[in-house]
Amino acid sequence: MVEEFSFINWIRGRTDLDAENFPVGPGDDCAVMRVGGQLLLVTTDQCCDGVHFVLQQCGARQAGYKGMARSLSDIAAMGGEPMAAVATVAMPRGMDDSQAEQLYLGLRCAGDAFRCPIIGGDVSVWNNPLLLTVTMLGRPVAAKPILRSGAVTGDAICVTGSLGGSQVSGKHLSFTPRIEEARELVFRYPIHAMIDISDGLASDLGHICRESAAGADLWAEAIPISTEAAGREDPLAAALGDGEDYELLFTLADGDAKKLLADQPLEVPVTRIGTITAAKELHLLGKDGKVALWVETGFRHRT
Amino acid sequence: MVEEFSFINWIRGRTDLDAENFPVGPGDDCAVMRVGGQLLLVTTDQCCDGVHFVLQQCGARQAGYKGMARSLSDIAAMGGEPMAAVATVAMPRGMDDSQAEQLYLGLRCAGDAFRCPIIGGDVSVWNNPLLLTVTMLGRPVAAKPILRSGAVTGDAICVTGSLGGSQVSGKHLSFTPRIEEARELVFRYPIHAMIDISDGLASDLGHICRESAAGADLWAEAIPISTEAAGREDPLAAALGDGEDYELLFTLADGDAKKLLADQPLEVPVTRIGTITAAKELHLLGKDGKVALWVETGFRHRT
Repeated sequence: MVEEFSFINWIRGRTDLDAENFPVGPGDDCAVMRVGGQLLLVTTDQCCDGVHFVLQQCGARQAGYKGMARSLSDIAAMGGEPMAAVATVAMPRGMDDSQAEQLYLGLRCAGDAFRCPIIGGDVSVWNNPLLLTVTMLGRPVAAKPILRSGAVTGDAICVTGSLGGSQVSGKHLSFTPRIEEARELVFRYPIHAMIDISDGLASDLGHICRESAAGADLWAEAIPISTEAAGREDPLAAALGDGEDYELLFTLADGDAKKLLADQPLEVPVTRIGTITAAKELHLLGKDGKVALWVETGFRHRT
Repeated sequence: MVEEFSFINWIRGRTDLDAENFPVGPGDDCAVMRVGGQLLLVTTDQCCDGVHFVLQQCGARQAGYKGMARSLSDIAAMGGEPMAAVATVAMPRGMDDSQAEQLYLGLRCAGDAFRCPIIGGDVSVWNNPLLLTVTMLGRPVAAKPILRSGAVTGDAICVTGSLGGSQVSGKHLSFTPRIEEARELVFRYPIHAMIDISDGLASDLGHICRESAAGADLWAEAIPISTEAAGREDPLAAALGDGEDYELLFTLADGDAKKLLADQPLEVPVTRIGTITAAKELHLLGKDGKVALWVETGFRHRT
């Protein structure tokens, strides 16, 4: 069976983009291309019934909302703001007009909240479950987008909100994409690297480290655990591995982090959870001070 | 069950775009947006196993090729050239690495032929058939894109190549997108309206007429019928309705058409097949000179 990350790496190995016109190719939250002297962010994500949502449980409107919100989260992770989206929908035969309309209204609900119009799309009907795909275009709010590859040894690792249990609490369907938070962060602080937490803190911090050729010390006690995850047998494992939190994970210089943490400028709390290291290894530092070599696992979508 | 065109019309009724930044919204071959002073074409299309191809018959490489070629055809239909594409793939669990690689190589084969790099994407695995979605960005080769809405009474209606039987001949999988032909046409002649024939000549001419608030007289004897369709019981019906020809259907002033037809500047023949009228009705003119009121039907994808 195809393993997603190794397949994407295989693709990256075959991708040879003109760096002037395409500064960022596959492997970040968005691709970046130059259009008319402006940097354009491009991201595409699919939402499949049985993988990213269960239509019978959540309804078409919520599925549409999530489809749009996932792409908005990717734009946020680049320090960007959305410009426009296109959406495709493969509908199960038998889906009726009112469900189709609810799906569209869900897409619009998430898009309208961040002034992201739907400018085009494609509709098919087939004998299989619902699948929707959203491609979103955006622009960096600062001069340059924030990449996964910008982390520097000594950087503070910070996260917005709290982590874990998103699949159970329903946050994975109804989350607010961190567009406003990303804008505030990028305007006010020199953010070095950023990603949205979709695969899970462990896995997504791994992406930052790999792309930055760095490592990390994670402080187990500092990781903000969601109410949902706190009730679980192993709350820390949930916060590290559940995924689909759609919070921002980012790094910045130690001094800038001190200012940010004192300011707390966002409507959600920002927490420092560790430090970028030169070790090219990931360590989890527990309360007994012991360093546990930590093997990245990360969340995989399950049917 | 959802009817594709009425659903898209419902969406268009709810779309209120800022015309300065988004000159063309849903309902043409591409949306058009302004980015950094440049007009950007945006199109998105999905290819579903069992609808647009049958994976077991055509293989993953051909499915990938078609996925990219369909979007290229939409860019061509706007008088555009491609800049970049992103692709998503929902893979059936059990699809192996070599099939996934063939799929990507098929996408690349079509993209590379027209200097259209794949700059990003998304891969999921699910318990259902293969579905791929390609979103493509392009730019108009002239100052403005060619829309469906530009047809004028008295315009000649022309078509590239020959029509019908694409599903049987396999052309619907292996066609060459008319990027080069569209560029040549747009550079050399003032094309008023253009579309690629995906739904079928009848249906797609209907799109041009509706968007242009016009009608058409189609000359039955002039319609170029493919070898495949010529062997059918009703070759004309095949050419009118089969769809997925991915040829260019366009209109231009009578005098310009005379020059174009004398020049025959393309590698494929260009044929005049009728005239745009003010009637807001579609007529098929048969060899006995009788005017048959012609009801638009067009091709619908079947599973």
